[in-house]
Amino acid sequence: MDASLARMLFAPRSVAIIGASDDPSKTTSRPLQYLRNNGFSGTIYPVNPRSRTVLGERAFASVEDVPEIPDHAFILLPAEAAIDAVIQCGRRGVKVATILASGFSEFGREGQDREARLREAARAHGVRLIGPSSLGIVNLHHSMVLTANAAFAESGLMRGGIFCASQSGSMIGALLSRGKERGIGFASLVSVGGELDLGIGDLCEAGLEDPHVTSFMLFLENLRNAPALRRFAAKAAAAGKPVTALKLGRSAAAAELAVSHTGALSGEDDVADAFLADCGIARVETLDGLIEAAPLLSRLPIRSAGAARPRVAVVTTTGGGAAMVVDQLGIRGIAVEPPDNPTLAAIRATGIDVAAARIVDLTLAGVRYEIMKGALEALLASSKYDLVIAVVGSSSRFQPELAVRPIIDVANKNTPLAAFMVPDAPQALKMLGEAGIPAFRSPEALGDVVASAFRRRPARGEVPATPANRPGGPVLDEMEGYGLLDLLGVSHARAITVGCGTQVVSDKGLSWPVAVKVLHAHIPHKSDVGGVVLDIRSDQEFAGAARRIVRSVGEKKPDLSVERLLVQEMTAGALGEMLVGYRVDPQAGGMVLLAAGGVMTEIYRDRSLRVAPIDRAAAYEMLDEVKIIEAFRGFRGRPAGDLEALADTLVAVSRMASSGMPVVEFEINPLLVLPTGQGVRAVDVLVRLAPGAEQERP
Amino acid sequence: MDASLARMLFAPRSVAIIGASDDPSKTTSRPLQYLRNNGFSGTIYPVNPRSRTVLGERAFASVEDVPEIPDHAFILLPAEAAIDAVIQCGRRGVKVATILASGFSEFGREGQDREARLREAARAHGVRLIGPSSLGIVNLHHSMVLTANAAFAESGLMRGGIFCASQSGSMIGALLSRGKERGIGFASLVSVGGELDLGIGDLCEAGLEDPHVTSFMLFLENLRNAPALRRFAAKAAAAGKPVTALKLGRSAAAAELAVSHTGALSGEDDVADAFLADCGIARVETLDGLIEAAPLLSRLPIRSAGAARPRVAVVTTTGGGAAMVVDQLGIRGIAVEPPDNPTLAAIRATGIDVAAARIVDLTLAGVRYEIMKGALEALLASSKYDLVIAVVGSSSRFQPELAVRPIIDVANKNTPLAAFMVPDAPQALKMLGEAGIPAFRSPEALGDVVASAFRRRPARGEVPATPANRPGGPVLDEMEGYGLLDLLGVSHARAITVGCGTQVVSDKGLSWPVAVKVLHAHIPHKSDVGGVVLDIRSDQEFAGAARRIVRSVGEKKPDLSVERLLVQEMTAGALGEMLVGYRVDPQAGGMVLLAAGGVMTEIYRDRSLRVAPIDRAAAYEMLDEVKIIEAFRGFRGRPAGDLEALADTLVAVSRMASSGMPVVEFEINPLLVLPTGQGVRAVDVLVRLAPGAEQERP
Repeated sequence: MDASLARMLFAPRSVAIIGASDDPSKTTSRPLQYLRNNGFSGTIYPVNPRSRTVLGERAFASVEDVPEIPDHAFILLPAEAAIDAVIQCGRRGVKVATILASGFSEFGREGQDREARLREAARAHGVRLIGPSSLGIVNLHHSMVLTANAAFAESGLMRGGIFCASQSGSMIGALLSRGKERGIGFASLVSVGGELDLGIGDLCEAGLEDPHVTSFMLFLENLRNAPALRRFAAKAAAAGKPVTALKLGRSAAAAELAVSHTGALSGEDDVADAFLADCGIARVETLDGLIEAAPLLSRLPIRSAGAARPRVAVVTTTGGGAAMVVDQLGIRGIAVEPPDNPTLAAIRATGIDVAAARIVDLTLAGVRYEIMKGALEALLASSKYDLVIAVVGSSSRFQPELAVRPIIDVANKNTPLAAFMVPDAPQALKMLGEAGIPAFRSPEALGDVVASAFRRRPARGEVPATPANRPGGPVLDEMEGYGLLDLLGVSHARAITVGCGTQVVSDKGLSWPVAVKVLHAHIPHKSDVGGVVLDIRSDQEFAGAARRIVRSVGEKKPDLSVERLLVQEMTAGALGEMLVGYRVDPQAGGMVLLAAGGVMTEIYRDRSLRVAPIDRAAAYEMLDEVKIIEAFRGFRGRPAGDLEALADTLVAVSRMASSGMPVVEFEINPLLVLPTGQGVRAVDVLVRLAPGAEQERP
Repeated sequence: MDASLARMLFAPRSVAIIGASDDPSKTTSRPLQYLRNNGFSGTIYPVNPRSRTVLGERAFASVEDVPEIPDHAFILLPAEAAIDAVIQCGRRGVKVATILASGFSEFGREGQDREARLREAARAHGVRLIGPSSLGIVNLHHSMVLTANAAFAESGLMRGGIFCASQSGSMIGALLSRGKERGIGFASLVSVGGELDLGIGDLCEAGLEDPHVTSFMLFLENLRNAPALRRFAAKAAAAGKPVTALKLGRSAAAAELAVSHTGALSGEDDVADAFLADCGIARVETLDGLIEAAPLLSRLPIRSAGAARPRVAVVTTTGGGAAMVVDQLGIRGIAVEPPDNPTLAAIRATGIDVAAARIVDLTLAGVRYEIMKGALEALLASSKYDLVIAVVGSSSRFQPELAVRPIIDVANKNTPLAAFMVPDAPQALKMLGEAGIPAFRSPEALGDVVASAFRRRPARGEVPATPANRPGGPVLDEMEGYGLLDLLGVSHARAITVGCGTQVVSDKGLSWPVAVKVLHAHIPHKSDVGGVVLDIRSDQEFAGAARRIVRSVGEKKPDLSVERLLVQEMTAGALGEMLVGYRVDPQAGGMVLLAAGGVMTEIYRDRSLRVAPIDRAAAYEMLDEVKIIEAFRGFRGRPAGDLEALADTLVAVSRMASSGMPVVEFEINPLLVLPTGQGVRAVDVLVRLAPGAEQERP
């Protein structure tokens, strides 16, 4: 982002407050009050056509009357008047405006029309917008409290390194106060509102220009302007500034457009999950975790797909407290591992007889500076661990010098170390916070943040452009779909097409038994219309099956003209079936999906998603995330399945994102998994192209 | 529990501190200090043979020298000396002793021997014990701080209504301080230690004698002395005093003893889950939830199995904050429901134009006393809701009179109402707490507590006694198992037994096709030894199958003499298979299990457990908890399964608990589910009896 735009957004030399009220009880009087209360050093121009002064200051009738071009205008007027104000700002040369009003796209057709006019006004007059529905923008290091949010009436706002951006304006105050309670200060806070122009990614990118900013905290209601968010996240990663996000789990309405299961499955919250991880953003699930995450994220290196499972040590003075941590990590798939013998010996050398167990329990007898310090040093010196967690009991409340001080003394900027205080221990948390040590007030927030930190992947700054996934694009028939599989190099069962009147197929070079299916692009779910007969072993059976299919489909889909059947060799020896899919998400782009096949696809929602394209390491990671894969790993004496071929298929399918093909939805279901060395075999495939792609069919 | 014993435990008139140290830095000096600091009004007798005074008070050389019989002795001596002290206490007539020392059963064979001697000493001399490994026992209303826990060095201990019992001594301090931070006070706190004699249930039952106690807070590491816990819980329910438990999720080692899948599956944390729910205890998952639960549990009626799904309303001044609550409830299966039209009209009548949506969002414009009060009254007046949740934004931090005060003003003791403060709002939380309103500082704790409150079931005070589930009991063969099914009235596929040399079965009255299986009590997993052939349609096929089975089993189990085969009609038309089981858990007693069959049993752990016996309402609730049941509800156009018959089977199997039969493990796997009206059909069954039950075979 242009540095001068960033300055006008977050460090303006002058601001116009358009619609500033003279009545101190009104919301619209707040920005002027808060700017003055906090000692804003720039020039403030209240604009109010009905009052010559506002709160004792000179007011201007319009932005045109303001004696210089303000860097930033905060427009407090209602929706329609706000559009006019944007036009006036543009004419005056104002480059940046923040709009408080709501009443745009969320207000039905009328609102959508209004939003279009606002967009056009901003574009035509060269004004960049924050909002609408933005409560404002705050830069504490610049004393710029340009907001109507009552939370900023508070004195003693805590400056710090966090850049906070929220799609919910009202959450800003909650994050501010909860940070303060934990001794955590902010650099900037921005209510991004409806993101009509500048999105959360753009605004955060502007925050990267501010040297005070050390980390980012995002409160997301949904995924919008995803490409800008990705771009920002890559820059943040390059700058070593971690990004934490709490995203509400609302389902994407986009799912309703989908034809296939893939669509129904992936147009949901786990798309955001995969997207955020792919951007190197840590998605947390708890409000405390959002507040407390940054120090740990700064210390823990981001892991690549294919890295070994993270290994965590827990050292404690209280068994019960540490067990809560082990539980919270365990339910998130992170195992706490006991020290090896040399490490145990080193801990014992500090003078405490620690039992060989998962938790290094120093017990009450170990509530001594030298012992906690020695144990931590021994664990940190072991090359085994990715993270060491110290859990301190009652002594942390009144005698932090015993078992909390040593945590601070052994830590340095790079040490992968975190702490949980079991009692209410504000002083210890403060000491740890000031020393930059990741410290948590609940075992749940600790588990949440540790898991989300390990889940991050190296930020991808760019992914291939994909065609827009709008409804109404053409669907390929199954045989055309196999053509696409051939292009991708994905194996499928041999199949031919025949006319509906065909009586004999034994001369077609297929092996019995075969399956017969209706072949029509408008019948994606063939079984639902009686369009499939399996296990056919003779021409006579074939002829009967063909008649039954034609009759049944004719009854259930009388409007379709069905002319062809697909005859396909049955595949013997499959160990089970999976679903492999690909779909263009309107925000996140091309996504690859692996899911349990059959009934389990929908009932267990047992699946893994990644932003495409992926490499083999990511494909194997997806396999690890799908529970049913366990059934292919030699489960209960059964032969192992060809997971290498399954991983290759995921990689191949994911390449659709970068292929330039106009495919927006793609689903192999089922993909049969054969024993090791025998590969996988697609026996059905559904492909939907982007609208208008008829001419480009592969 | 005997009231006089309860008094000696929690309100002794005199205590002896055996092993009290004169060195104020020693742990063993603490109980005397804490009793004095807190103004204990009873008589204290320090006992120390090596010192004539302890901390300036007269000390006694032994408990025999104490001038009266102390009500309660706190024994601070090491393990061996503690046993002697118990004997001396007994001789002196002391009825209750608390033991600090560890070094008993957790210390290998030596420790187990020591524990046996301690148990015998207590029994022989009529002393009731708390501990060993108890940090002590505290009754704040009695100023009785008889503990070595350094957390009680703190002044200003907050008295209140919570009785806290913990299997982890060190957690007591954490709960005490976290309660204080939230303005929540305690009546008593007891570190139950190893529960050698008095278990957590006994001690809590004693707490029921104390009129100061209004609720119970349990921190559990595992399920021990479950019958006493159940007895207490029933009495607490009858007294209207809610019980909350946080239990660590460690797996029970008992699972390893199990022969069948049922054993492997149920000997785990979800047994405790089912047990606690059956006792009417709310099991929470978060530490904050444990602290904050009691007020909500007191207001929300306990729901019976079969009650309609709980309905919750959310009213808010902040959309983002309320959305977090909806999310946290949603992931726990609780839906927030929009108000109906009359309720919406009543809310709008307060003067705010609320949109018709899931959340009643008053917005910033609704941050006014009358509006929040009116909206709450309208929602509470609606008969639709089981609970109304008020979510208050930034105003709660500095202006609680606007949107927090009305919550207090509309509430009464029985109103199902809860509140979440989105910012850090200690003053509002304090106001709400003092008014007895359930109030939460995080959306996660709120979701946790609400879900756990609704999950409680009416406390059962007694369940049938079940035989002890020790290893080594006899296993029935499949045909004997079917005999048991006949007794229970559970349908199974027709089967006969034949000798291994049999060539012809067409004269036995069975219909083709049949399955042939090896029949031997020592071969529970028949497929693993090649002992099953399916789909046999002639005598010739039968004879070949029988030969193959005999040969394969002979190779794989050469030590077993196999003489019989089971021939069973194949069942056509099944829609899928389930696992129905029963198992005697060493703590929780008879448990009934419903699980997805086949591979899914182990991979998805998709299952539901209940303490047996159950009624039909509970059986239907179990069905609702198993995801795969969705596949039997007319899933994707398939016929519906006979879930009525499945529920009946669960009820029938659960009756084994009260049948007096010596069955300790029982598993129908698979139980085939047929279309509605056609019932279910067991096609394999595994039964293990209690050791020594050979003579009683059913």
